[in-house]
Amino acid sequence: MIESPAVPSTLEVALGDRSYPIHIGPGLLGDPQWLAPHLAGRQVMVVTNETVAPLYLEKLTQGLADDLEVRTLVLPDGEATKTLAHVERIWDALLAAGFNRRCTLIALGGGVTGDMVGFAAACYQRGVAFVQVPTTLLAQVDSSVGGKTGVNHPRGKNMIGAFWQPRAVLIDTGTLATLPPRELSAGLAEVLKYGLIRDADFLAWLEAELPALRGLDAAALTHAIERSCALKAEIVAEDETEQGVRALLNLGHTFGHAIEAHQGYGHWLHGEAVGTGMLMAAELSCRLGWLSEAEVARVRMLIEAAGLPLTAPAEMGVDDFLAIMRLDKKNLDSRLRLILLRALGDACIHDETPPQTLAALIEAFPRR
Amino acid sequence: MIESPAVPSTLEVALGDRSYPIHIGPGLLGDPQWLAPHLAGRQVMVVTNETVAPLYLEKLTQGLADDLEVRTLVLPDGEATKTLAHVERIWDALLAAGFNRRCTLIALGGGVTGDMVGFAAACYQRGVAFVQVPTTLLAQVDSSVGGKTGVNHPRGKNMIGAFWQPRAVLIDTGTLATLPPRELSAGLAEVLKYGLIRDADFLAWLEAELPALRGLDAAALTHAIERSCALKAEIVAEDETEQGVRALLNLGHTFGHAIEAHQGYGHWLHGEAVGTGMLMAAELSCRLGWLSEAEVARVRMLIEAAGLPLTAPAEMGVDDFLAIMRLDKKNLDSRLRLILLRALGDACIHDETPPQTLAALIEAFPRR
Repeated sequence: MIESPAVPSTLEVALGDRSYPIHIGPGLLGDPQWLAPHLAGRQVMVVTNETVAPLYLEKLTQGLADDLEVRTLVLPDGEATKTLAHVERIWDALLAAGFNRRCTLIALGGGVTGDMVGFAAACYQRGVAFVQVPTTLLAQVDSSVGGKTGVNHPRGKNMIGAFWQPRAVLIDTGTLATLPPRELSAGLAEVLKYGLIRDADFLAWLEAELPALRGLDAAALTHAIERSCALKAEIVAEDETEQGVRALLNLGHTFGHAIEAHQGYGHWLHGEAVGTGMLMAAELSCRLGWLSEAEVARVRMLIEAAGLPLTAPAEMGVDDFLAIMRLDKKNLDSRLRLILLRALGDACIHDETPPQTLAALIEAFPRR
Repeated sequence: MIESPAVPSTLEVALGDRSYPIHIGPGLLGDPQWLAPHLAGRQVMVVTNETVAPLYLEKLTQGLADDLEVRTLVLPDGEATKTLAHVERIWDALLAAGFNRRCTLIALGGGVTGDMVGFAAACYQRGVAFVQVPTTLLAQVDSSVGGKTGVNHPRGKNMIGAFWQPRAVLIDTGTLATLPPRELSAGLAEVLKYGLIRDADFLAWLEAELPALRGLDAAALTHAIERSCALKAEIVAEDETEQGVRALLNLGHTFGHAIEAHQGYGHWLHGEAVGTGMLMAAELSCRLGWLSEAEVARVRMLIEAAGLPLTAPAEMGVDDFLAIMRLDKKNLDSRLRLILLRALGDACIHDETPPQTLAALIEAFPRR
C-alpha cells in the first residue's frame, strides 16, 4: 500500500507560453480540480490501453464534469503497439466523433500511450491540446515530461514524431501500487540516469534508497519522482528541441535502442534496455580513461540493485549493434554520437570514440 | 514563352528565428546559389511527382553541389495521392537511405507535393529542414508559403498535419510555361482570394489583367505572384498558427472543401472548388446584407474571367454540404465558422450565420 503526503507538489516546465505544471501526489486521478483547468474546450477523449483501462479509466472519467463531451478509446498494450497504425486509430476516432481543434486528448497509461497520444495530438488538425496522466514509473519520471512524442518504425525507435508539449502532467503516485515489479525496475533505470548524468548527490541517495523504492516506500518514491522530474524540467527548459544539453538524457539509449530494435519491440522493456545500455556507456567511458574501474563497478551495482539486466542478448554481435546505432537520431553527417560519462554525475556528448574502441567494448560486454 | 525580369525579387516571411526568404524569378531552378544556403547538411532528398519529374527534376539536381548525398523520390500525382500512406513512403525512403536529423527535403511540385513533403519533414526524427520549390501557380501563391503541411483523411481535407515552416521558398516563374490552363485557373482562384479578403486595389488590377495572366504574360504573372506572396507573408507573420486573422485565408475554402470531399479528392482541382466556394461566400455575404448585388456580380465576373466554375455539383444537396462543413477545422465547440465578406477587400470570421440563411443559400446556388 502506498501512502504519500496528502498535498501534491507542483513543478513547472518553463517554456514561455508553452509552460506547464507537473502535479505529483496521491489521489490526483479521481479529483476533478487537477484536470479541469487544462481542458481546451468541451470535447475530451481519454486514450488508454487494455491493461490500464480496467484499473483507472472509470476513476478518471468520473472526475470529469458532466457538461463535457467525453469519449474513450482503449488500445492494445506494449511497445510493439507503438506504431503509426495505432495513432491512425486515434485520428479515426476523433474524426468519427466530430472533434474539432478545441478538443483535448488525455493520455492515461505508460510511455507508449503517452508518446502515441501526444503525437496524435500534435498532428490532429495541425495540433490540439493534450494532458499526460502517466501510470508507470518510467512515464512519470521521463516520457510524460518534455514533449517528445512519436512512434517506432521497423527501422528504428521513435523515428517518426514531433515535439509537442502537454498542457499539464498529472502524476498520481497511487497508481504505482498496481505496477508489476519488472515495470518498476524499468522505471528506476531512468531515475538512475538523472543521477548519473547530472546529480551525484541524488545518485548517492539512490544507492541507499533503492531497496525502499523497490519495496514501494511512498516517501522514497515521491522524492525520486520529484527529483527526476525537476532535473528533466530543468534540462527541457534549457533545450526544448535537443540542439545540445537535452541529448544527455539519452545516456544508455543508443545502446538500448539497438537492443530493443534487434530483439523486436516489446521483448525487452525500454527501461531494461536503457539499464544495460548505461552500463555499456559506463564501460566505454572507462576505456576512454574517464571513469575508474571502481566507478564502473558502482554503476553495475546500482543497475543490479534496481533489478535490471547486466548483460546484452547472446545473439547480438558487434555488427548488429553498430548497424542500428548508425541510424540513431543523434548522429550528424555519418558520425556516431554517444552520451558518455566524464565522471559519475557528469555526462557529455561525444562523437570521437575510435571505432575499434567501441567495437572492442561491444565485443567484450557480457552476454546472457 | 515566359520572360521575366532577370533579377529575382525576394520577400521575407518574418517569424523570428523561423523567418525565411521567398525568392521569385525566372531560372531559379537550375541555379545553385538559391538552394545551397538553405541545406542543413550533406544529405538531400528531392521529392517530386510523376508529372513534374520529367520536366524539372534533372534541372534541379544538376544545380546541387557534387559533394552532397542526393536522393530522389518520385510519387504519383494528384490530390487523391495526398495520403498518409504516401508520406510513409517518404519516411521509408529516408530511413532506407540512412538519412539523419541534419538532412534536407526538397519539395518539387504543386501543393500536394509541398504539403506532403512538409509534413514528412515535420515528423521525420521529430523535424528536419525542408525547402519548397513550387511549380504550379497555386503552390507559388499560396500553399508553399506559411508552413501549413499535412494530408487528407477520408473524413476531411488536411485533417492530419503540422505547422512546419520551410527554410526557403524558391519560385521559378519559368515553370508556369508548362502548366496546363486548368491548373493556371485553379491558381488564379487563390490570387483572387487575396484581393477579395484584403486588397481592393489588387482586385481592381486583377480585373484588368486576368486576360494577360491567362495568356501567361510574364510581367503580369510576376506581379500577381509577388503581391499574393507579400499579402500571405504579412498574414502569416501576424498569426502563424491561425488563432485569428490567418483564418481569413480560408475564404471560399469551407464550401470548397465540402465539394472536394464529396466529389472525391482530385475530381475538382482545389482552386476550382475554392473559386465556386468564394462565390457562395459572396452570395451569403449578400444575403446577410453586407455585399450589394452589384458586388456579387463583380465577384462572379472575376471568377468566370479566371476560368473557374460558377456552379456546384448537381448531385450535392444542402445536407451533403452541411455534413462536411460541420467537420471544418475552423469550427469551435459545434459552431459553424465561415469566412465572409463585409466588403470587397475586407473579409471577416463569422460564426453567427442563421442556419436557415445558410441552408437557403446552398439550396438556391446554381448546380451544373
